[in-house]
Amino acid sequence: MAGNSFGDVFRITTFGESHGEAIGVIIDGCPPNIAIDTAFIQSELDKRRPGQSKITTQRKESDIAKILSGVFEGKTTGMPLAMVIPNEDQRSKDYSHIQDKYRPSHADYTYQMKYGIRDYRGGGRSSARETAARVAAGAIAKSLLAQQGIHIFAHVSGVGKIEAPNLTSADIDELVTMRENNIVRCADPATANEMIDFIDSIRKAGDTVGGRISAIIQGVPVGLGEPVFDKLHADLAKAMMGINAVHGFEYGSGFAGSEMQGSEHNDIFVNPDNDAAKLQTLTNFSGGIQGGIANGMDITFRVAFKPVATIMRSQQTINQAGETTEITGKGRHDPCVVPRAVVIVEAMAALVIADHLLRHQSYHATK
Amino acid sequence: MAGNSFGDVFRITTFGESHGEAIGVIIDGCPPNIAIDTAFIQSELDKRRPGQSKITTQRKESDIAKILSGVFEGKTTGMPLAMVIPNEDQRSKDYSHIQDKYRPSHADYTYQMKYGIRDYRGGGRSSARETAARVAAGAIAKSLLAQQGIHIFAHVSGVGKIEAPNLTSADIDELVTMRENNIVRCADPATANEMIDFIDSIRKAGDTVGGRISAIIQGVPVGLGEPVFDKLHADLAKAMMGINAVHGFEYGSGFAGSEMQGSEHNDIFVNPDNDAAKLQTLTNFSGGIQGGIANGMDITFRVAFKPVATIMRSQQTINQAGETTEITGKGRHDPCVVPRAVVIVEAMAALVIADHLLRHQSYHATK
Amino acid sequence: MAGNSFGDVFRITTFGESHGEAIGVIIDGCPPNIAIDTAFIQSELDKRRPGQSKITTQRKESDIAKILSGVFEGKTTGMPLAMVIPNEDQRSKDYSHIQDKYRPSHADYTYQMKYGIRDYRGGGRSSARETAARVAAGAIAKSLLAQQGIHIFAHVSGVGKIEAPNLTSADIDELVTMRENNIVRCADPATANEMIDFIDSIRKAGDTVGGRISAIIQGVPVGLGEPVFDKLHADLAKAMMGINAVHGFEYGSGFAGSEMQGSEHNDIFVNPDNDAAKLQTLTNFSGGIQGGIANGMDITFRVAFKPVATIMRSQQTINQAGETTEITGKGRHDPCVVPRAVVIVEAMAALVIADHLLRHQSYHATK
Amino acid sequence: MAGNSFGDVFRITTFGESHGEAIGVIIDGCPPNIAIDTAFIQSELDKRRPGQSKITTQRKESDIAKILSGVFEGKTTGMPLAMVIPNEDQRSKDYSHIQDKYRPSHADYTYQMKYGIRDYRGGGRSSARETAARVAAGAIAKSLLAQQGIHIFAHVSGVGKIEAPNLTSADIDELVTMRENNIVRCADPATANEMIDFIDSIRKAGDTVGGRISAIIQGVPVGLGEPVFDKLHADLAKAMMGINAVHGFEYGSGFAGSEMQGSEHNDIFVNPDNDAAKLQTLTNFSGGIQGGIANGMDITFRVAFKPVATIMRSQQTINQAGETTEITGKGRHDPCVVPRAVVIVEAMAALVIADHLLRHQSYHATK
Repeated sequence: MAGNSFGDVFRITTFGESHGEAIGVIIDGCPPNIAIDTAFIQSELDKRRPGQSKITTQRKESDIAKILSGVFEGKTTGMPLAMVIPNEDQRSKDYSHIQDKYRPSHADYTYQMKYGIRDYRGGGRSSARETAARVAAGAIAKSLLAQQGIHIFAHVSGVGKIEAPNLTSADIDELVTMRENNIVRCADPATANEMIDFIDSIRKAGDTVGGRISAIIQGVPVGLGEPVFDKLHADLAKAMMGINAVHGFEYGSGFAGSEMQGSEHNDIFVNPDNDAAKLQTLTNFSGGIQGGIANGMDITFRVAFKPVATIMRSQQTINQAGETTEITGKGRHDPCVVPRAVVIVEAMAALVIADHLLRHQSYHATK
Repeated sequence: MAGNSFGDVFRITTFGESHGEAIGVIIDGCPPNIAIDTAFIQSELDKRRPGQSKITTQRKESDIAKILSGVFEGKTTGMPLAMVIPNEDQRSKDYSHIQDKYRPSHADYTYQMKYGIRDYRGGGRSSARETAARVAAGAIAKSLLAQQGIHIFAHVSGVGKIEAPNLTSADIDELVTMRENNIVRCADPATANEMIDFIDSIRKAGDTVGGRISAIIQGVPVGLGEPVFDKLHADLAKAMMGINAVHGFEYGSGFAGSEMQGSEHNDIFVNPDNDAAKLQTLTNFSGGIQGGIANGMDITFRVAFKPVATIMRSQQTINQAGETTEITGKGRHDPCVVPRAVVIVEAMAALVIADHLLRHQSYHATK
Repeated sequence: MAGNSFGDVFRITTFGESHGEAIGVIIDGCPPNIAIDTAFIQSELDKRRPGQSKITTQRKESDIAKILSGVFEGKTTGMPLAMVIPNEDQRSKDYSHIQDKYRPSHADYTYQMKYGIRDYRGGGRSSARETAARVAAGAIAKSLLAQQGIHIFAHVSGVGKIEAPNLTSADIDELVTMRENNIVRCADPATANEMIDFIDSIRKAGDTVGGRISAIIQGVPVGLGEPVFDKLHADLAKAMMGINAVHGFEYGSGFAGSEMQGSEHNDIFVNPDNDAAKLQTLTNFSGGIQGGIANGMDITFRVAFKPVATIMRSQQTINQAGETTEITGKGRHDPCVVPRAVVIVEAMAALVIADHLLRHQSYHATK
Repeated sequence: MAGNSFGDVFRITTFGESHGEAIGVIIDGCPPNIAIDTAFIQSELDKRRPGQSKITTQRKESDIAKILSGVFEGKTTGMPLAMVIPNEDQRSKDYSHIQDKYRPSHADYTYQMKYGIRDYRGGGRSSARETAARVAAGAIAKSLLAQQGIHIFAHVSGVGKIEAPNLTSADIDELVTMRENNIVRCADPATANEMIDFIDSIRKAGDTVGGRISAIIQGVPVGLGEPVFDKLHADLAKAMMGINAVHGFEYGSGFAGSEMQGSEHNDIFVNPDNDAAKLQTLTNFSGGIQGGIANGMDITFRVAFKPVATIMRSQQTINQAGETTEITGKGRHDPCVVPRAVVIVEAMAALVIADHLLRHQSYHATK
């Protein structure tokens, strides 16, 4: 209800503010007997962590997740799995200059108006720091999905007006290797270099820039997703739009598909395995989802991120008293959010698929 | 859980298949003492009804909603408000030719695989006929919102590659008049004519085409929306992506915004009314929402619809036995879905805003 | 949220007022391919129907449920299953005398205060007529459970100070036969006669009397139920307390168990089948549930109903203007509600067990 | 879904096992600007804490709750309020003797069957230690309710066959004083002494005994509660039945009321304040709730606790291999749970009322 939970069966609730004691997450509904690999959780958190490279914020936080419950002798027990990530590098003093000013295109004004109180330190709850909790939960979801042969890949497909060509491989392991070879996390090496140079120039200019992340989900069994309101792509859309700075979502043919005609857009069914339960389609404009339900093809979607609102330039704004004032970004901020957001996109996708996997089971396992 | 409900406090549950006895909806959580205008409900349903013009399906259905409960002496009572719309023009025979064939880019295959059974008549539950129930519920939500000075406007802003210019008016009454002056429901008369001619040519060619709907919501009070997962735009995205044939959603600056830089994208606060609780922004790239919460500016978003999958041409496909076969669209279908979908977009937007209005009240009315 | 839905996965939402157009129910989350036996649904409704015998209300309503959706060729499709029961015998005039008076121990005053409006005809939504919708939904749940070998039995175990002896059979078919042999629905014939005579004398005196219903659920597999808040008995308690006129619930040893000592109350495990997954207990003070989760033994519980509030005598009360006035019951009311409530208790128990069956599956079917 | 959350708007999720790292709770939906009194939270936890007196377990745990989020400068912010209580006195070795034995009338067998894995140390998640998290959350709910003039009182009204007389005061402050004057927490001094002596004798005999807790809620405004399934007493019942060891719940006249006749049971309305919105009733068999909705009178209910299952005597049981074995309670256990459960009953009642307060607001604050 108050917006801090996600999922129906595999359900997470996150808590914590940017400069409070800690952030964290409870997963409720995680099946028992899933092996927990804390090194994997950490490697996922490390992909989101600040201070990774010259094109991300220089803040230092180790972002170490501690499991408080729900795991016994290395396996999940079916009980709520709670993880806490302490806030180390709080430097609250950095934020005194914004205590009573509304930063443009941030959530300061809306939180103040909604709640009549706000923790202004680092954006408080509206800070993207909260997404670390999602990444930790996403790592558990990924472990569950991997057991079922489901794998998720996302990469930076666009920065500003730079757009990567279509992926040249359908092998997720290979794609991950290509992506992790560069600091912008684009699976196309030439485009990656272009993006890195561009972000670096933007950073030096004290400015920021938006970008796009594209994703593939492989191995989703036919049947996941629900009709009408909880279509698989509707839940993916909500998951992605809930990530800080996201302004757009499309799946399959997306906005471009709305310019097409039915005769070219329809995905023709074929039966290469001669198995009526394993059909494929010649094209995949449907993005792996038909009528809201997975059809066994790759699920594909794309997410648009606006430019980071905190810039290192002076901007006019209004303070809590309603007076005109000026504000200049201080501290350590990202010139472009997408390289660190790749793992967040994957985490949220994993949470959606895990939840739909369990939802699907609930009324289909009955003999 | 099973996907047929939407909303947390103002919560609807729809039921019914295209060729069953009836479709309908229960609204639970509607506040009491809202005056119910059955003529208004009907006028909304008439905008979605088949058989409106030469560019929509020629099926005839009167789509009359009957209220079964929750209204007493013309006002809501706070009890569940149930509405039923009988299915009149069922012509089940039209569908015998698809009984065991999977129509390309429809939900036939996924429903059969998920449930092991499906009502194949007219697509059963996956038919867009179900959206009539949403429109009826949306009419009640609009009545509730109108009491609070909140108004919603959507129109067809794109068909195929044709794109309407930006709106020239900010007055919703005026925009509605311009939109209802033409059968494609585009508020720009010149573009409307172009769209109508194009759809008509597509129809004659036995083909279909996609399109786009743009929307504005005015009068939303500052503070609606929740942090983290239930951001106002995340719930709008889910609502829109749950409409049949929708493949993309963006709000505010959307995908285009992801190409911009922070210095041009940030919305500068101003205080024209000299009221610290009624700030405005000079630009509105934020689309009226910051940190997931309404900031009092117009909420703007855009929705992409794929071309209708049923075309009047022969296509190759697979049947339930896994054999290759052919299929040709029969019956009466829309060449382009967007003219009839405008009121569905508005209805779903109204349901999202009504729900967030009540959610916001729940913990803010406390003295 | 607004209180008209029950269940998480097998979820029902009821609607309708006593003297409105119709009452009804949507079941969302019913698994597909359950055979629907409309005669069975009707036979269940007939057990709750008014006008059955001299000790129930003499109102006549045929209470015929019409299925509007979710069933195709005699089987559930996994889509929402909607049922409507028209209100036939409305006689609204019977209620003009209570239009602005608050009947003692009814919901008139609280509904008026809560909503500022109420459908006073026959109690509107607060009428026990709403439970017919639950019985119809319960019939579907029972069909699902019967497929899994789960069976529910309830009977009238107490009326006023009359208390039936413990059941002499553990065979549900036999118990049902004994119960249906008499109009008070007590499985002990001698006690049944005593109860019938007592209720008849109460009725002649223009008064009413309370009673108790006891229930057994057989065949529930080990593992159903959830920890902490959604213990199986906690959900049974909520389900029973939500039935009109219920004032108390106990399971297993109940209130009497709170007077016992651990050494006599503990249920000793034994392994008669030499199967470590099919243990039994020598006693069953736990009522088939340990730690909120079914242990495979019979689930037992008991429900207390207050006397019907409408009596055929003059009572002092207050009207909407706050003035003292008098009121006398008119029309056709039950002198004792328990004979008709037996099937409601069974229906609600079936809904709880069906829901927990599907919930349990959701995270345990994962391979 | 997985059972570790409670409430719809004021919603808590607890986590943690008896001998894990920590237990804790997230409150989501707490209104902003509630002053947080950590001393009060602690004083509540101290009432549940082990080691209080000779009639409770001698385990020592300081049970200190640490707030991790959701509070800024002493006030709630509307963000998730997370609290963690570290587990200090773990002594896991105490439990090695039960590692593969099913303790009679505990949850060992059902957890093992349901999940295929269990944290056997101290009962893991099924331990009543989890209720400390509820007490911490209940303290926040009580602070919210106190602002609205709502107060809750519970005390031990029965131990074994000993039953306290009816309360002699209607003043909650006075009742609290009387209750806290003795270690069994019964507001009647003479009965308290009798109870203490009896529990002490039971303890010396290595046995345990059940008991009963009675509660009053004062100041609940007319209108709280929802119709049909979420009646205020239905949610209270679920809340109480979810407390470890509870086997029965009744409100108002309860089971005794089911033996009465309508003419004596009906609560006659009066209007002593000459205010049509502040009626009272001459009697209160309705327990302050009519049709599921508070009527402004005191809400009264009673809860039955079975005897603690762990006794200091040898009992026969079965181990995980299905073999017959013996078990003897070790360690430090309560001979009677009710003195420590009083504050748990109050906490759960506070959570129910707080949730219904916010639910009621959600659709009634609309102008």
